[in-house]
Amino acid sequence: MVYLSCCYNNSSFGQFTGADNPGFMKPDILISEVGLRDGLQNIAATMPTADKQAWIAAQYAAGCREMEVGSFVPRKLLPQLADTGEIVRYATGLEGLCVAVLAPNPRGLRDAVAHGAHKVTLPFSMSETHSLKNVNRTHARMLAEIRACTEYLQGLPAEARPHFEVSLSTAFGCTLEGPVPESRVLAMAEAVTALGVDEVSLSDTTGYGNPRQLKRLVLGIREACGRDKLQGVHLHNTRGQGLANALMAVELGLTTLDSSLGGIGGCPFAPGASGNIVTEDLVFLLESMGLSTGIDLAALIEVRELVAAALPDVELFGFTPDAGIPMGYRAA
Amino acid sequence: MVYLSCCYNNSSFGQFTGADNPGFMKPDILISEVGLRDGLQNIAATMPTADKQAWIAAQYAAGCREMEVGSFVPRKLLPQLADTGEIVRYATGLEGLCVAVLAPNPRGLRDAVAHGAHKVTLPFSMSETHSLKNVNRTHARMLAEIRACTEYLQGLPAEARPHFEVSLSTAFGCTLEGPVPESRVLAMAEAVTALGVDEVSLSDTTGYGNPRQLKRLVLGIREACGRDKLQGVHLHNTRGQGLANALMAVELGLTTLDSSLGGIGGCPFAPGASGNIVTEDLVFLLESMGLSTGIDLAALIEVRELVAAALPDVELFGFTPDAGIPMGYRAA
Repeated sequence: MVYLSCCYNNSSFGQFTGADNPGFMKPDILISEVGLRDGLQNIAATMPTADKQAWIAAQYAAGCREMEVGSFVPRKLLPQLADTGEIVRYATGLEGLCVAVLAPNPRGLRDAVAHGAHKVTLPFSMSETHSLKNVNRTHARMLAEIRACTEYLQGLPAEARPHFEVSLSTAFGCTLEGPVPESRVLAMAEAVTALGVDEVSLSDTTGYGNPRQLKRLVLGIREACGRDKLQGVHLHNTRGQGLANALMAVELGLTTLDSSLGGIGGCPFAPGASGNIVTEDLVFLLESMGLSTGIDLAALIEVRELVAAALPDVELFGFTPDAGIPMGYRAA
Repeated sequence: MVYLSCCYNNSSFGQFTGADNPGFMKPDILISEVGLRDGLQNIAATMPTADKQAWIAAQYAAGCREMEVGSFVPRKLLPQLADTGEIVRYATGLEGLCVAVLAPNPRGLRDAVAHGAHKVTLPFSMSETHSLKNVNRTHARMLAEIRACTEYLQGLPAEARPHFEVSLSTAFGCTLEGPVPESRVLAMAEAVTALGVDEVSLSDTTGYGNPRQLKRLVLGIREACGRDKLQGVHLHNTRGQGLANALMAVELGLTTLDSSLGGIGGCPFAPGASGNIVTEDLVFLLESMGLSTGIDLAALIEVRELVAAALPDVELFGFTPDAGIPMGYRAA
């Protein structure tokens, strides 16, 4: 399927690039930049469409090959992302870039398909309290909507069908419920897999997660759903644990990690804390361990200037940009 | 040996506390608070002796059982630590607290012994360029001084002999030399072990380290020197990698981790970046994974107020104090 072939973690990628781009090396880890969605939706200012396009172009030039660029939700709910359709059309013009979006329901999924997004993620909160508060849906209603999504997708011609992922949000705990039973996360992962989604992912929405919990959940989902059904995690850095959890994820063999440039977004309620994992620090972690990301760290750090200029009131986080790239980086 | 028995990672600890403190539980991981040494030596202000004592008392009350409280160096070099002798005398009055100090040479070691420190760490830079610049010593000269230290200690009665550790600093890379060959670190670890030191530790002085490098070094040193000769690491958070490296350390079975309250110190040259691992975030990482530290996180976070009041111009770092302790923490 042509849309999928832009995703590194899809097995059809090799043959796609083998023909079109013989010099291309598949990276070990695909970093999915979520700043344009998770970042921008959590700040008050609305970034102009032209600035979003410049950000996407610059980060693509730095080597980033998956970006979650927006969310198909009603314009009045998230005016910051009202131009998602236009942004998707722009981003799909960049060869080899997997253009991902969020869609909270079947309606958003249809919009995503209409605009040609390559990957669509539907968030499904493992805390029913959170699900009711956030999208006014019980777990049963969410499962029915996910079923409607997969049935709709199965009716499409293969070449028009995006990669459809359900993100198991609040999987590591909920600010309303507290601990979320791991057995519930595994049961829900199994249920949505049975409905025919391409993939499930784990999301530490609240920054409650720890590496050993991540390990139990990953191993449990692999056993319940099959290893190929879980490739990625969306981790937050609310309590500074983001890279420790990311390390566990890659040591377990996961291949897709979400992060945001400057760590923006992810956590609107914790002042002083970066919410998302900082892409710059994540690239440094992976590349210094010898895991390729395809991303040029120095070029990535330069993208910050563009974002800072477009969002003068937003604080950018990240340790590596402050401290600098070490002498001899990647020489080892 | 009585001094050693205050260190959790020493096998004689059990019998010591078994008699004196029957309700005491040995934690899985000993966190060694280095804020009073590595923190205070890197800031311009000098904390009054009474404030240092209050800090030590408060963190001891929160459950901390090892603290590096100062350094026996000439007063004019580090006026912030000029009261180290007095601080050691105070801290050794707290039952079950392992009182550690730094000593750069045999003279500092003798001072540490005279004041009754329980543990003495001598830093030995794996980068000879850094060693020459920092303490004007070649590697050969450093080895001769370490030999003088162990010979001096062997001449003391056992009850007066502190635990003597050599910290292999810049083991993960040097800002002057760049990458430091791992073979050199292993050779130096073997050489100092042969001189009769009780323990070697690994120090990521520059914040260059990554988890897989840490793993190679730990496994290599264990093979070269014996598993019991390496228990601890001193990690920095200069590039945000501190907790990822800490995770690898505990997954490898290391049992002593250095960190500093509020992350102060460790990195005077990187503005905006906390240098040391933040003790609060480290406690959260370990305890949430089910590894006991003996430290009450809420009480630890309260210690920040005391330090902030005593050092009004110093920024305290840490994500967990900002974001708060999760609902249901330690309930899992």
